[in-house]
Amino acid sequence: MNISSRDLTMQESPIRKLVPYADRAKKEGTKVYHLNIGQPDIKTPDSMLKAYSEVPQVIAYGPSNGLAEYREKLAAYYSEIGKGIESDNVFVTTGGSEAIIFTLMSALSPGDEVMIPEPFYTNYNGFAAMAGVSVVPVTTSIDDGFHLPSIKVFEEKLTDKTKAIMFSNPGNPTGTVFSREELEGLILFAKKHDLYLISDEAYREFTYGERTAVSIMEFEGIDDNAILIDSVSKRYSACGARIGWIVTRNTKLLNLILKFGQARLCPPTVDQLASLAAMDTPRSYFKEVVREYKGRRDFAYDELISIPGVIAKKPEGAFYMVLALPVKDADDFAKWLLSDFRIDGETTMVAPAEGFYSTNGLGKNQIRLAYVLNKDDLKKAINIIREGLKVYPGRV
Amino acid sequence: MNISSRDLTMQESPIRKLVPYADRAKKEGTKVYHLNIGQPDIKTPDSMLKAYSEVPQVIAYGPSNGLAEYREKLAAYYSEIGKGIESDNVFVTTGGSEAIIFTLMSALSPGDEVMIPEPFYTNYNGFAAMAGVSVVPVTTSIDDGFHLPSIKVFEEKLTDKTKAIMFSNPGNPTGTVFSREELEGLILFAKKHDLYLISDEAYREFTYGERTAVSIMEFEGIDDNAILIDSVSKRYSACGARIGWIVTRNTKLLNLILKFGQARLCPPTVDQLASLAAMDTPRSYFKEVVREYKGRRDFAYDELISIPGVIAKKPEGAFYMVLALPVKDADDFAKWLLSDFRIDGETTMVAPAEGFYSTNGLGKNQIRLAYVLNKDDLKKAINIIREGLKVYPGRV
Repeated sequence: MNISSRDLTMQESPIRKLVPYADRAKKEGTKVYHLNIGQPDIKTPDSMLKAYSEVPQVIAYGPSNGLAEYREKLAAYYSEIGKGIESDNVFVTTGGSEAIIFTLMSALSPGDEVMIPEPFYTNYNGFAAMAGVSVVPVTTSIDDGFHLPSIKVFEEKLTDKTKAIMFSNPGNPTGTVFSREELEGLILFAKKHDLYLISDEAYREFTYGERTAVSIMEFEGIDDNAILIDSVSKRYSACGARIGWIVTRNTKLLNLILKFGQARLCPPTVDQLASLAAMDTPRSYFKEVVREYKGRRDFAYDELISIPGVIAKKPEGAFYMVLALPVKDADDFAKWLLSDFRIDGETTMVAPAEGFYSTNGLGKNQIRLAYVLNKDDLKKAINIIREGLKVYPGRV
Repeated sequence: MNISSRDLTMQESPIRKLVPYADRAKKEGTKVYHLNIGQPDIKTPDSMLKAYSEVPQVIAYGPSNGLAEYREKLAAYYSEIGKGIESDNVFVTTGGSEAIIFTLMSALSPGDEVMIPEPFYTNYNGFAAMAGVSVVPVTTSIDDGFHLPSIKVFEEKLTDKTKAIMFSNPGNPTGTVFSREELEGLILFAKKHDLYLISDEAYREFTYGERTAVSIMEFEGIDDNAILIDSVSKRYSACGARIGWIVTRNTKLLNLILKFGQARLCPPTVDQLASLAAMDTPRSYFKEVVREYKGRRDFAYDELISIPGVIAKKPEGAFYMVLALPVKDADDFAKWLLSDFRIDGETTMVAPAEGFYSTNGLGKNQIRLAYVLNKDDLKKAINIIREGLKVYPGRV
């Protein structure tokens, strides 16, 4: 029996491909610090947890575009960011993942191209493969803190199949927050060439004082181009709730998104009710969470940059950073940490950054690190990287 | 801005396309009996509801293939049905919908064909469109109670692009339960031509004494061909939980399904915990539910068949039936009920069956009816159809 030809384009997730190594380490009794995946340790807000216990007596289908009350509350939130966002401009999905899949399937035809600044969230590859579209990477550099190159570079990559530019802002895996000027440049380019702008803003609340995230919904004159992706996963430390949404003023696009939504019936009902309740979370919760992440970022950055040979720019948002290590092959180093290196029976798991690049050969000496652990654990986890680099045989 | 060319292949759900008519009726104060959608009114089991209130403090990502404990318990359930089903043969998805999308994307390449006996669950069209594969309908007849035609008919439709046969058993929208002999015929055909057999068994517990549902997992010698689709939606009256799963012994296929699964991260965590708890539901719950549905089926069938000009065979499973009405255009009749016909300020919503056929022009005088209401409501709802047919201008 043959399986689908998609097997050739679907990659195994680079974030998860080292899991067997970690599992083996754990089986041997090793404690593994997970800096490889963006699973925060922050408690989900009480309002959200409480809502789960107020479950209805019949867990019924909801509307395909999400519960009306939830869409209204989300629209109110975005109304403070951009003009003319009504509940009908919000489409609730099963996580940000489904939001991106539906967006790519609705905005692009099979065979079309989407430009994505690299390094980028690796699952964009999978979503593009599902939608049958090609990813065209636009390379950014660790030396520029992964900010966008000049629009010329985008122009050079443009073909008659280019239909969209997609990016996450603040960035996963880079932690980079785009300036208003960077976005304005992209917008001019998108308007000129009739391109969709797909702005993944799942980390929009996570910035640390240097720069706040500018939403694509703030800009006028791009009603048909602009598509915002968002999710409860990181904002409320509720990754397992699988609730996300699309915001766009493009009603023609929304009509097609609705057809995909109707086919899969609806996003999870109780998780939507909990996500609705989460919107009543007091500002103090976020202030506290952001303060905590800022402390972790400052600590992690200072510690890491003090390791001889490590190169990084201080990230301004999200809770990731990409570092260059003094190694030839970061994938091998990450495996080596899991297989061969222990301090007091503990080791650290990181994500090799190569998988976040679409261009072959880039990022080979880089890793992505998620600072989602408390400071004590972070200290031990980074110390394992520091000490490991001293004795790792593949060091350069 | 152009939208995706998929707009041409994605249909609006025929179950939902009359919703604006129903909404208008409700706005005017009319009570609408919903026989159009399979949303049961049965209470979700207590064990499941209780589990929602025992939510963890951090709603975290789970494994991409589902929680290990849940997969183990599901495997134990299927072990009583077929040999050699381990937890690794079970892949948990976001509803049966995602199970089918992942299956089609993994088993078929873009451009391939899947044969489906029609009338069929309309969302199969949407899933096929998402996967870029073509549906080849194999027509069944109301006169045969929608049982399968001879294998010759399948042979005639076979091309070098045919890669799978997909069906629901018990059937949605027909309520038909395939005999062991029917399935054996399909299996011989599938083995001969190396085809996948995708058996959607979401209604497997819902049969009413005449015939029990035979699972595709019962058969030996088709380890690589057989794929079972299932879901908690109907079994536990938990449609909004969005938990489904794939069972197959084909490990090559499972590896590709895992890649799609990793891209979208995981199915909802709390809903999985609740679905796990649901498996402790006592047999008495199901006995009571099946008894209730049997009563409804018998009542609905007897009432409907007594309406002059109505044609139907008694369905043996699920909670749907397809009827031929003495009208030229059932879609028009359904709209007319919602717009123009009331008894004591009440009306009935049914699903025109045309949308369940892939072959143009079939099913024009048929409707699908879901007997998901209690008997009192069912009586009133069917009486509205009976009385409506007496005065409907488009009657033949």
